[in-house]
Amino acid sequence: MGKYAIAIHGGAGTISKSSLTPEKEKAFKDALEQAIMAGHGVLQQGGSALDAAEMAVMQLENSPLFNAGKGSVFTNDGKHEMDAAIMCGKTLEAGAVAGVRHIKNPIKLARKVKEESEYVLLAGQGAVEFALSQHIELASAEYFFDDYRYQQLLDARESGEVSLDHSEKKKQKFGTVGAVALDVNGNVAAATSTGGMTNKKYSRVGDTPLIGAGTYANNKTCAVSCTGHGEFFIRAVAAYDVSCLMEYKGYTLQQACDEVVLTKLQDIGGDGGLIAVNTDGEVVLSFNSDGMYRASKVNDEETFTAIYKEH
Amino acid sequence: MGKYAIAIHGGAGTISKSSLTPEKEKAFKDALEQAIMAGHGVLQQGGSALDAAEMAVMQLENSPLFNAGKGSVFTNDGKHEMDAAIMCGKTLEAGAVAGVRHIKNPIKLARKVKEESEYVLLAGQGAVEFALSQHIELASAEYFFDDYRYQQLLDARESGEVSLDHSEKKKQKFGTVGAVALDVNGNVAAATSTGGMTNKKYSRVGDTPLIGAGTYANNKTCAVSCTGHGEFFIRAVAAYDVSCLMEYKGYTLQQACDEVVLTKLQDIGGDGGLIAVNTDGEVVLSFNSDGMYRASKVNDEETFTAIYKEH
Repeated sequence: MGKYAIAIHGGAGTISKSSLTPEKEKAFKDALEQAIMAGHGVLQQGGSALDAAEMAVMQLENSPLFNAGKGSVFTNDGKHEMDAAIMCGKTLEAGAVAGVRHIKNPIKLARKVKEESEYVLLAGQGAVEFALSQHIELASAEYFFDDYRYQQLLDARESGEVSLDHSEKKKQKFGTVGAVALDVNGNVAAATSTGGMTNKKYSRVGDTPLIGAGTYANNKTCAVSCTGHGEFFIRAVAAYDVSCLMEYKGYTLQQACDEVVLTKLQDIGGDGGLIAVNTDGEVVLSFNSDGMYRASKVNDEETFTAIYKEH
Repeated sequence: MGKYAIAIHGGAGTISKSSLTPEKEKAFKDALEQAIMAGHGVLQQGGSALDAAEMAVMQLENSPLFNAGKGSVFTNDGKHEMDAAIMCGKTLEAGAVAGVRHIKNPIKLARKVKEESEYVLLAGQGAVEFALSQHIELASAEYFFDDYRYQQLLDARESGEVSLDHSEKKKQKFGTVGAVALDVNGNVAAATSTGGMTNKKYSRVGDTPLIGAGTYANNKTCAVSCTGHGEFFIRAVAAYDVSCLMEYKGYTLQQACDEVVLTKLQDIGGDGGLIAVNTDGEVVLSFNSDGMYRASKVNDEETFTAIYKEH
C-alpha cells in the first residue's frame, strides 16, 4: 500500500499568542484535529484524495471558528457569500462556486459542479439553482448567524474597512479553510472554501474558487490550497505557480512553496500562506504572516497541529 | 522610440470557407481592421499598452459580429451575461468582471475594477452596482438584441445544447474577443471580453475573466488573451502557462504558445486558441481549431488579417 498524507489550514493572519486565550487556542486545535482525523480516516480506508480533502474541508465548514460555511463572515449588506473549489490531480478536473448564499457546505457544491455539470465555475444565484437541481443541503440565514461575526461587521462598517478574517491587530481578517491530500493510489487533490471578507461589497470574488490562484492539483507535481489576501494570490496565480516551479524549474516542493510565499507574494504585499502535498507524501505548510491555523498527518505518524510561527 | 505591436482575436472555432459568404467574410475582416487600427493609433501616439488593448477590445465589443458586448449571445433564460478582464504587465495589476448584465462595454468596467477598487474580480449584480458608482455606461436589453443570436438560442434550446460561438458545424460556438499590446515604453497588456455560451445555465463563468486562465500579462514574459472552450483553458491555467514556460523553461514565445495550444490543450480536447505578444514585439497567433478571427500589426508594418487556417 502506498504512502498517504493530508494537510489542512484554517486561515492565516496576524495571530499572536496574546490574542488567543488558552481556551480559544484549545478550541481551534481541537477543531483542526477533528478535521484532519476525518480526512485521514478516509485515506486510511483506501479512499480517494478527493474524498479526503472534501471531508476535511466539510468539517472545517461545519465549525463556527473558521471563516467558511457556518462560520462565514458578513458581507456589507449583512449576508453571507461563500466561495469554494476542488480539483483532482489525476484528471485535472475541477469544480468551483463563487458568491453562493444559503449553501450549508459550499465544498460539496463545488464537487457536484465538477462531477455533475459540464462547467468548472458557477456563480451567485445560478450556482444556487444548480444546487437545488442536485439536492444540495441549504441552510437558513440563522444557521450562519454568529454574534462575533456580526460584531466584526459592525466594527468594519464603522471603520469603513473591508477585512479578511483572523488578523486582530489591523482588523484584517484572513479566513479560508483548505485541505490537500495524497491517497494510497498516488493521486493528489486540493479543496478550499471561504466566507470571504467582512464588509465586502460588489460581490467581490477572491482567489479561493479560481483554479490556479487559490486551489490547484496535478499528479505531476502537487496539490495546493491557499489562504490570505486573495487579490495578491490571483495576480500571482499562486497555486499554479508552485506547480510550475516544480514542473518547469525542477524545484522541490519546499523550494517552490517558499519561492511563492516568502519571496513572490511577500514582495507584492500578499499576506497569507498555503499548504501543499506532493505524490511522495511530502507536506509543506508555508506562510508569511504571523500565524496560520494548520495541521498535517502522514500515514499513521503523529498529527502535527500549530497556530503561531515556530522559530 | 521603442517597438510597438498589437494583436487581436474575435474568437476561434470551426470556421470553414464554405460557412462564410464573401460579404460576411469581408464584414469580419473590416471589423478586425477597424479594431486593430484603433488600438494601433493609441500606440503610435505613444499611448500605453493598457489603453491600446482596452480600445481594441471596445471596438470589437461594439460590433454585432463578435460574441462580446453588443454581439453577446443569449443565456438559457434569454438574457446576456458578459465577462471581461484586463491586466497590466508592468504592475501585474488586474481587473475583471463576471456575469454582468446591461454593461455596454464590460472591458471598461474591468479597467475600472483594476483602477478604482481594491478588488480584482467582481461578479453579477455586485459588479453592476460598482458600475453605477463609477458612472459606467449601461445599455438596455434592446441594444444587445440580435435576430441571429436569438435564433442561435432557439436552436440550442431545441437541441438541448450549450454552445460557444463560431462553430457552425457542431453548433459549438467559441466566441470571445481579445487584444494584446506592447507599447513604446516596453510594457505589455492583455484584455479579453466575452458574451459567454449560447443557452448557458447556472451563471457559468468561463476562462475570460480569470487571471491566468484566459487573460495574463507580465513584462518579464508576455501578454496573452485566449479564446475557446473555457473549461479546458481554466483547468490548464492556459495564459499563465505560456508565461511560465517562457520564464522557467526558457521557451521562446512561439514555443510556449505552441506547447500550450497545440499539445497541452489539444491533448485534453480544449478547442480554441490564443494571441500573445512579448516585449520584443514578437506576435504569435496560435489555434488548434479550424479558424480564428485574428489580426496583428507591428510598428507601421502592414496589417495582417486572417480567419481560416493557413497552410
